[in-house]
Amino acid sequence: MTSHWPNNELTKLLHLDFPIIQAPMAGYSTPELVTGICYAGGLGSLGAGYMSPDEIRTAIEMIRLKTRKHFNINLFCYKPSVCDQQTAMKAQNSLNPYRRKLGLKERHDIPLLHYTFEDQIEVIIEEKVPIFSFTFGIPSKKHIEDLKNNGTILIGTATNLEEVKALEKNHIDAIVLQGAEAGGHRGTFLGSFSDSLIGLISLIPEARAITRLPLIAAGGIMNAQGIAAALLLGAQGVQLGTAFLACVETGAPFCYRQALLKFAKHPTVITSAFSGRAARVIKTNFLDELEKLPIADYPYQNIMMGDIKKKSAELSNADLLPLYAGEGFPMISDRSSLEIFYDLAQSTSLLFKELRQSNP
Amino acid sequence: MTSHWPNNELTKLLHLDFPIIQAPMAGYSTPELVTGICYAGGLGSLGAGYMSPDEIRTAIEMIRLKTRKHFNINLFCYKPSVCDQQTAMKAQNSLNPYRRKLGLKERHDIPLLHYTFEDQIEVIIEEKVPIFSFTFGIPSKKHIEDLKNNGTILIGTATNLEEVKALEKNHIDAIVLQGAEAGGHRGTFLGSFSDSLIGLISLIPEARAITRLPLIAAGGIMNAQGIAAALLLGAQGVQLGTAFLACVETGAPFCYRQALLKFAKHPTVITSAFSGRAARVIKTNFLDELEKLPIADYPYQNIMMGDIKKKSAELSNADLLPLYAGEGFPMISDRSSLEIFYDLAQSTSLLFKELRQSNP
Repeated sequence: MTSHWPNNELTKLLHLDFPIIQAPMAGYSTPELVTGICYAGGLGSLGAGYMSPDEIRTAIEMIRLKTRKHFNINLFCYKPSVCDQQTAMKAQNSLNPYRRKLGLKERHDIPLLHYTFEDQIEVIIEEKVPIFSFTFGIPSKKHIEDLKNNGTILIGTATNLEEVKALEKNHIDAIVLQGAEAGGHRGTFLGSFSDSLIGLISLIPEARAITRLPLIAAGGIMNAQGIAAALLLGAQGVQLGTAFLACVETGAPFCYRQALLKFAKHPTVITSAFSGRAARVIKTNFLDELEKLPIADYPYQNIMMGDIKKKSAELSNADLLPLYAGEGFPMISDRSSLEIFYDLAQSTSLLFKELRQSNP
Repeated sequence: MTSHWPNNELTKLLHLDFPIIQAPMAGYSTPELVTGICYAGGLGSLGAGYMSPDEIRTAIEMIRLKTRKHFNINLFCYKPSVCDQQTAMKAQNSLNPYRRKLGLKERHDIPLLHYTFEDQIEVIIEEKVPIFSFTFGIPSKKHIEDLKNNGTILIGTATNLEEVKALEKNHIDAIVLQGAEAGGHRGTFLGSFSDSLIGLISLIPEARAITRLPLIAAGGIMNAQGIAAALLLGAQGVQLGTAFLACVETGAPFCYRQALLKFAKHPTVITSAFSGRAARVIKTNFLDELEKLPIADYPYQNIMMGDIKKKSAELSNADLLPLYAGEGFPMISDRSSLEIFYDLAQSTSLLFKELRQSNP
């Protein structure tokens, strides 16, 4: 049988009661959110991509104070390109009118990187975290070996079939399949972003046909129907980000959470204007304007947006915020993460029960 | 219960044994394919968008000679823009190097439209076809009234929620939800193409929440798992095109069918380079070249491609063919349409049976 809800090889591998993973959502996941989901029987993930090694270590300590369950730390696994200073300066300058609008000082500096993936992953290895997930690439053989020697379970992210094969070849334990529907940054690392926007209804069965690894479907899943569909398609679990993005325990600013509810009729689109890397966001007037301006490469553009994001949150004004969201965001709820999680788990159980009891 | 396989309100409405519709695929569906699918208990659809009124009438006669079952005729419901002659001339000229390659005469003429949707729909009304589906828009109130007076069942196509609402408001009987995964032309008529690329795993539950009309999921569905997933998500039926595109009875040239099998590792992308209107195709070298050339509006670009497509088929060379295909095309089969259909129907039945028999 296809689904094996709620127990299957993935729940065994990750020590879960339900094969539901709260997506890392770098910048917006909190130790409270992570440990709440772990408590409820799912897998909580801390998106540590934008955290310094020290911040990661502190967050892991906070998580360990609150739970003895398996939790997940996620990093962006990539080597930044050298900053094209000319484009970066143009991009920096073009953001100054928005800074003035927010009462911020103008900036004319080239953004600096204060830490790399190499620095961050050292903390993951030293802290012997139970589960480590990553996106944008694959860690080095040495890192994978070190992590495996610690007993850390490894989850990679794939957006196309070549990436599925590459992850399996590198002995990764499970794969997040990021469908085109997914909010936030695209994980693509082999091939182009535009060639790797595959809907889950096609991507899951295609991946299922070429790998025996547990598959975790991510993108646009917001309810029991979506979870059940992903399992029927051949996934062993699901990863939901947007479903938890407006909940009480999220680290997303209040104005962002309100915008998610308010903009339900806006489309989402793929853009690299906010960070320099392709990501799905809600289409806003600010995005339309940004897309006409020079954009620096990732992560430099993202760093330059930092003061604007921070000030917008302080002013509780979402107009100049990147509103990362999956295609299912019109179904979003602002209840607590535990209410959302238990509702998903119970509704999915009920759905499978109804299926079992239905007449032929 | 969600799925009601194989009988539900849609199979009742359309007089089917299985809620599986063979997609119209203008240019590539044949009376043989249509009547075969009808015979097997699904709904066969003739994509008549590129057929003259006389050709449509003849095809309907051929279908009626072979089946007494309900069948579907599909049209492109739109008013063409006035041809921008300057762009069209540039586009026409830029295709001449390819014509020379194929041994075709150069062309320098502006493409002409020999019939309109208005001419085509008159045949649908006169012939009192049992089911009429349409895309790119909504017929006029008068046409809808005429069709309804004939007892014709109407199926519209939506790619976003505004279109779902508009179809319901116009008293259409059922809605094809075209997910971002779908091959061929995008049906979008309210809002932009790029804003209306929503994966089925998000689009179906969102549409289900705002309409009580039967929903038919289309895009990227190739197997029983995909069908079951769509039904669980809230659809009453599915429409599959690519799944039948390489079958024996298709009207697609042999080299196209072979290319679908051969190019399984190529990505698909959305482009308007082949017809002037956004469509999902397999990415090829020819597409890369075309995208750098001037492109006329739809349908003029499509008409200009006509001689190239015809000659390519004669030479059995797919290099210069638009390879329309959905995101699930790597799972394609070249068996007969009946084998494919019965396999889908039986595998889906088996899947639901297994679900019923599974332990909690």
